Amino acid sequence: MSLWQQARRSARLNPSIIREILKVTEQPGVLSMAGGLPSADTFPVLAIREACERVLTQAPREALQYAASEGFAPLREWVAQHLGTLGMVVDPGQVLITTGSQQGLDLVGKVMVDAGAPVAVETPTYLGALQAFNPYEPIYASLAGDADGPRPEAITALAHDAPGTRFAYLLPNFQNPTGRVIPEARRVALVAAAQAARMPIVEDNPYGDLWFDDAPPAPLAARWPEGVLYLGSFSKVLTPGFRLGYLVAPPVLYPKLLQAKQAADLHTPGFNQRVVHEVIKNGFLDSHVPTIRARYRAQCAAMAEALVQHLPEGCEWQRPQGGMFFWLRLPVGCDAMALLPQAVAQGIAYVPGAAFYAQAPDPRTLRLSFVTLSPEDIAVGVATLGRVLREHLDAQREVAP
Amino acid sequence: MSLWQQARRSARLNPSIIREILKVTEQPGVLSMAGGLPSADTFPVLAIREACERVLTQAPREALQYAASEGFAPLREWVAQHLGTLGMVVDPGQVLITTGSQQGLDLVGKVMVDAGAPVAVETPTYLGALQAFNPYEPIYASLAGDADGPRPEAITALAHDAPGTRFAYLLPNFQNPTGRVIPEARRVALVAAAQAARMPIVEDNPYGDLWFDDAPPAPLAARWPEGVLYLGSFSKVLTPGFRLGYLVAPPVLYPKLLQAKQAADLHTPGFNQRVVHEVIKNGFLDSHVPTIRARYRAQCAAMAEALVQHLPEGCEWQRPQGGMFFWLRLPVGCDAMALLPQAVAQGIAYVPGAAFYAQAPDPRTLRLSFVTLSPEDIAVGVATLGRVLREHLDAQREVAP
Repeated sequence: MSLWQQARRSARLNPSIIREILKVTEQPGVLSMAGGLPSADTFPVLAIREACERVLTQAPREALQYAASEGFAPLREWVAQHLGTLGMVVDPGQVLITTGSQQGLDLVGKVMVDAGAPVAVETPTYLGALQAFNPYEPIYASLAGDADGPRPEAITALAHDAPGTRFAYLLPNFQNPTGRVIPEARRVALVAAAQAARMPIVEDNPYGDLWFDDAPPAPLAARWPEGVLYLGSFSKVLTPGFRLGYLVAPPVLYPKLLQAKQAADLHTPGFNQRVVHEVIKNGFLDSHVPTIRARYRAQCAAMAEALVQHLPEGCEWQRPQGGMFFWLRLPVGCDAMALLPQAVAQGIAYVPGAAFYAQAPDPRTLRLSFVTLSPEDIAVGVATLGRVLREHLDAQREVAP
Repeated sequence: MSLWQQARRSARLNPSIIREILKVTEQPGVLSMAGGLPSADTFPVLAIREACERVLTQAPREALQYAASEGFAPLREWVAQHLGTLGMVVDPGQVLITTGSQQGLDLVGKVMVDAGAPVAVETPTYLGALQAFNPYEPIYASLAGDADGPRPEAITALAHDAPGTRFAYLLPNFQNPTGRVIPEARRVALVAAAQAARMPIVEDNPYGDLWFDDAPPAPLAARWPEGVLYLGSFSKVLTPGFRLGYLVAPPVLYPKLLQAKQAADLHTPGFNQRVVHEVIKNGFLDSHVPTIRARYRAQCAAMAEALVQHLPEGCEWQRPQGGMFFWLRLPVGCDAMALLPQAVAQGIAYVPGAAFYAQAPDPRTLRLSFVTLSPEDIAVGVATLGRVLREHLDAQREVAP
């Protein structure tokens, strides 16, 4: 027997497929549309530098000492107030500052998921959430959906198909990977179905601020406060390198999540919380976020134009209204994973969509990020993708009987 | 049925007794010897301020972007080299940077502890480790010990008494709460017993650098590299507010711990890692840590003197050779938890020792921190403790038949 006996759950821990892909694709000369990183050009370096200086001048002893597991009180108040502008009614006492919103997902899994318990997820869904939940050994119930998001009937059906489902994990705004936003009418119907089924919702909203022309409809949490746990993040609007996220929990759940947080890392770095609060406390994001939107909107437009121009017939996609990603479905006979080596050989990279499915992946899908390349490079990259696909389709027709 | 169905493990999540006690005892005018915080006077504010400035000038895009789950490579190299000076042979590829060493404990629990599996702990042991392991639902096997630490026979006995024990969790240096250091001969015997029993060890060393006169013996990990997982921290020698710790894992375990880390929070804040590396890379700790040692040594001496002077007969303690804590055993008939309200009423606070036992607490024990009060306040605080104890013992004698 091995000296180190591992827990059963460790069989559910696996290398991130995306990280493995990025290792292969992050080569010099490759135009990568694979990453999920925000553009480093959007990081407000000067504001952060000044805030570090102020925090370490004004409150160094507090910023460098152990701190409360709940988070820095003024930052929790800021979050509560900010969510108020989205239509939520949040008491700062419901806000738990987390070490990135990834930690929020881990805490949710720890407090709510038993081995063998069903968890409902979108098809496809955010890979990082699957990774966070997996060690708690859920079984996944995939929610069928369409261009407007998961279908309310899919929620209703769970009561019969997967009794005891702990929650439905939903990403209403510019979902990773598909980029789609759930429209108002679908939100209303989803919440009604969830309420009727007494199915709690975990709402993940890292991209909601990154809209191009119109803000998305109000969060699900604004419609059913006691039935929705909400996750937010500073990673996409400020910096991911500070690892700052938050969750807003119904009061009945908050104490256990807090205790799980304490057990996990005592508290999120107080210094980081104070610096971010110092940056944002006087409305900085009101002027900063629009600059990110403008940048991403232009990059999205460049990719939309290039896709129309360069992709062969049979490719399907929707132009996103915000966020960071296009989601493509390739023509019949194309397997995005199988084509990746050819794409990389020709100088581009993407993420095959299969990674984002809890079950039954669609091998024809892939995700393209538009936020890290310039519009010019996007045009070149998409043209290359079109060429790779055409060559493959041509070769396929040649061997066809 | 409740809308939010919780996981079975959430019954094992509980409020930290220490945090609850601190809430009661942290009142203005109370001389607190209860906290486990390092002294804020030891935080190198200027060095950290300058390092923030340099990192945000020289590598802002990298410091503020998502980063590798393993940690910042130069920091991992620093850790490997630093541990070399303690007698360990560590490849940087074995180092995983964690969000405080508390996270290291959580990852260990996640990867190695099944519900119902035995985990061996010292008697008493670090409360935060019990909190980290609890959600994974172990049963605890308490290792009997003496002033030199756990007894080797206790490890040997586990093979019969608790087959399948996943690991023994040990704190060889200036243990929290007892302050005791395991001497060389006991380390040799413990490792021999663990090797014979094929019982892996999780070695936690947050206080090892805080010795007063002599460095402690080499870590257990230096004696049995493939059988010991080692945890370290920057919290006690630099700042806890940055939440920076690390673990060193045998190569066979590293990949699963890394995957668990990724699932838990993607990575520890890259900015914090770069700032700390910037502070320490040129030997800063070589001159900084001795200033902490000198300060704590003087405070420890003040407390040692005050204890001799003020405590009633029947109290037992050992003078620690490093770290932050005295551990007292009160005379027969004293219950540290029951006496706490009287102590607080008279203006002092301590932590009752019962919190630190996985099983069968000794109610006569308590922990005193000497690092946050001045020598003068320590004298006053210990005198007050002596008075509280005498009054209690006198009252007890009066009611005795």
